[in-house]
Amino acid sequence: MPLPNAFYAQSGGVTAVINASACGVIQTARKHADKIGTVYAGRNGIIGALTEDLIDTGRESDDAIAALRTTPAGAFGSCRYKLKSLEANRREYERLIEVFKAHRIRWFFYNGGGDSADTCYKVSQLSQAMGYPLQAIHVPKTIDNDLPLTDCCPGFGSVAKYVAVSVLEASLDVRSMARTSTKVFVIEVMGRHAGWIAAAGGLVAAQGIPVVILFPEVPFDEAKFLAQVDAKVKECGYCSVVVSEGCKDASGKFLAEQGSTDAFGHAQLGGAAPVVAELVRAKLKLKHHWAVADYLQRSARHIASATDVKQAYALGKRAVELALKGHNAVMPTIDRLSDRPYKYRIGMADLADVANAEKFMPRDFITDDGFGITAKCRRYLAPLIQGEDVPAYADGLPVYVSLKNRAVKKKLAAFELA
Amino acid sequence: MPLPNAFYAQSGGVTAVINASACGVIQTARKHADKIGTVYAGRNGIIGALTEDLIDTGRESDDAIAALRTTPAGAFGSCRYKLKSLEANRREYERLIEVFKAHRIRWFFYNGGGDSADTCYKVSQLSQAMGYPLQAIHVPKTIDNDLPLTDCCPGFGSVAKYVAVSVLEASLDVRSMARTSTKVFVIEVMGRHAGWIAAAGGLVAAQGIPVVILFPEVPFDEAKFLAQVDAKVKECGYCSVVVSEGCKDASGKFLAEQGSTDAFGHAQLGGAAPVVAELVRAKLKLKHHWAVADYLQRSARHIASATDVKQAYALGKRAVELALKGHNAVMPTIDRLSDRPYKYRIGMADLADVANAEKFMPRDFITDDGFGITAKCRRYLAPLIQGEDVPAYADGLPVYVSLKNRAVKKKLAAFELA
Repeated sequence: MPLPNAFYAQSGGVTAVINASACGVIQTARKHADKIGTVYAGRNGIIGALTEDLIDTGRESDDAIAALRTTPAGAFGSCRYKLKSLEANRREYERLIEVFKAHRIRWFFYNGGGDSADTCYKVSQLSQAMGYPLQAIHVPKTIDNDLPLTDCCPGFGSVAKYVAVSVLEASLDVRSMARTSTKVFVIEVMGRHAGWIAAAGGLVAAQGIPVVILFPEVPFDEAKFLAQVDAKVKECGYCSVVVSEGCKDASGKFLAEQGSTDAFGHAQLGGAAPVVAELVRAKLKLKHHWAVADYLQRSARHIASATDVKQAYALGKRAVELALKGHNAVMPTIDRLSDRPYKYRIGMADLADVANAEKFMPRDFITDDGFGITAKCRRYLAPLIQGEDVPAYADGLPVYVSLKNRAVKKKLAAFELA
Repeated sequence: MPLPNAFYAQSGGVTAVINASACGVIQTARKHADKIGTVYAGRNGIIGALTEDLIDTGRESDDAIAALRTTPAGAFGSCRYKLKSLEANRREYERLIEVFKAHRIRWFFYNGGGDSADTCYKVSQLSQAMGYPLQAIHVPKTIDNDLPLTDCCPGFGSVAKYVAVSVLEASLDVRSMARTSTKVFVIEVMGRHAGWIAAAGGLVAAQGIPVVILFPEVPFDEAKFLAQVDAKVKECGYCSVVVSEGCKDASGKFLAEQGSTDAFGHAQLGGAAPVVAELVRAKLKLKHHWAVADYLQRSARHIASATDVKQAYALGKRAVELALKGHNAVMPTIDRLSDRPYKYRIGMADLADVANAEKFMPRDFITDDGFGITAKCRRYLAPLIQGEDVPAYADGLPVYVSLKNRAVKKKLAAFELA
């Protein structure tokens, strides 16, 4: 009797370290080859499970799997595809179980954010209801750092490092130019609802760099913002502004909306930086430059945080270990024990408590004026960007692996996505 | 009798490695302490000379000067301030000579691009005409890579590496997401007139990544561009677009103009990426993301090219050596001897031949369709991004030096800038 198999899928926006979690899952499964058959990966996330488009990771060499640790983005493809509620589309959940059954999959490792934690939980509930022995473990991943019950989320530390390094470097540039040219540099960063990523830009304020942060948590007040920038330029000669894509005015309107929505129904944002920059030009008559980091910030494996890489790997590894211990509907977590020295352990949370909850920046992480981060916030953020985990380079470029991604033979009839 | 002094100034847009040239100048001058007194740096470039705001680099420790090699931006401040013609504002040139005379400055090292090569040349002419013994040496620097007579310009290799790495990483991201989400990623890069920087994005095409480049040298043809993107998305499932800020349509209009001009009278650009992205959305109905790298690309010392750093330093060093050999009105150059293995030597060009000439991409560096780079271009670019020169890190951030920048006591009356 062949051993039962595992399924692994990546969900939602990818990160610089989601493949490090995949690496943790697959390498740990390979270490337990006496219990786990093959890890099948979903091609393009959960869609791969629904359409029975499974990737046989057993066909990848140990070296290729090891290289996942230093490769950004989703090696098996991800997707933005949210399963509806059990009531609204029970058919999809039943299809998942059907595919798992056909390929003798007993373990479901789902690597994603809040939406996928919810899916993972529902799949575990339904398999139980249907009497199919499946263990569903969620591996946390989100640059937004907004999952509850874990101190931080893999992917976030590397974005935070990218943003802090970028703000530092660009600020030195503006400082050089400010006498006759650019006085204000505006950088737009991700974070639809929570200002965790924008907050990372505040880490460089400790080096005396004037930074004004626009958080989604703080309604945009034009007059106060302009006064802040004006004061910093008068004091230091220049200023950097970090604006979150999720920054809204008092009426709840985003500073910039592209007007379209993604597959999860979230508004697709972009363009807050030019709006803010134009304000600075028009009202303060200051020369500006602006940047929109977009995908660069979440794919920048070359400047990944070693702490983040380590945690991403550890959570993938622990997910498999929890599965082998018999756990179901859980998520391994980062439990912080101390800030300085930074100590943490890998804990565990019930998915019932995780699904669809969002963790916002605590108010006491933001300064009273609403434009900076507090010492408490710095103590929280600082350990997450620690350490460099430089990939190998060849011909001047990082060496990133592309897997063979060979398909597993299908056994079922085709399935139409909703 | 104290030794004569040297003057060093940074001009125009700063780079990730201009301080490496400063390091080369100052360290080499310190090695020749028997001939060169102190290196005075202009605070904020040539303005520092005009206003007699000189920085005493002799007050900086050897360690601080050494740290310039790994610090981006302009350590003494730069400026966008173009001296007018000798006829239009002879007063400014005479003031420079006056300041040099007052501080016994016999060597003028000017670190910049085409405009400053021109200024450097004029200063050398005027000092000769006035009988003041000054040697003016230009140290090349420009991310635009558009100076003639040198194979490449310090600053460019690091931007090229940043752009190539960023396009590689973001492309892996889009590839992961393309099944249900983003299919086209657009990144805007610098380069007002020449497409050297945009060309660097083409280096990743060798890895099978579909890239469409929009060069300033090729008039934008909407229909052809959309057909290219459409074909690549149909073939690969996704596509990355690298658009130069200098990209213009057939009538010569920039894809996006902010409408303002900088102190040199150049149009200040920005926003080509959203224009291109909107086209992709509206005409091809493809989901996109866009980024504008702006200052991030030229300040990204953390991902600098080791070749670039080495050359920037070597040219600063050679500038001092040329001065000590009695040269005047010259610029040290990079003379390429072979592509593979990459070999070059440091040469020398007369400033009379350099000033105000621009070097465009050769037509045979761009593919016939106008959207990619040729093998010849790849052979040219590839060596320039070779090698990593990782700065030291502390607390998760690169350690960049901020100098004391102590002012030299003024000896002259104040001077009003034009």
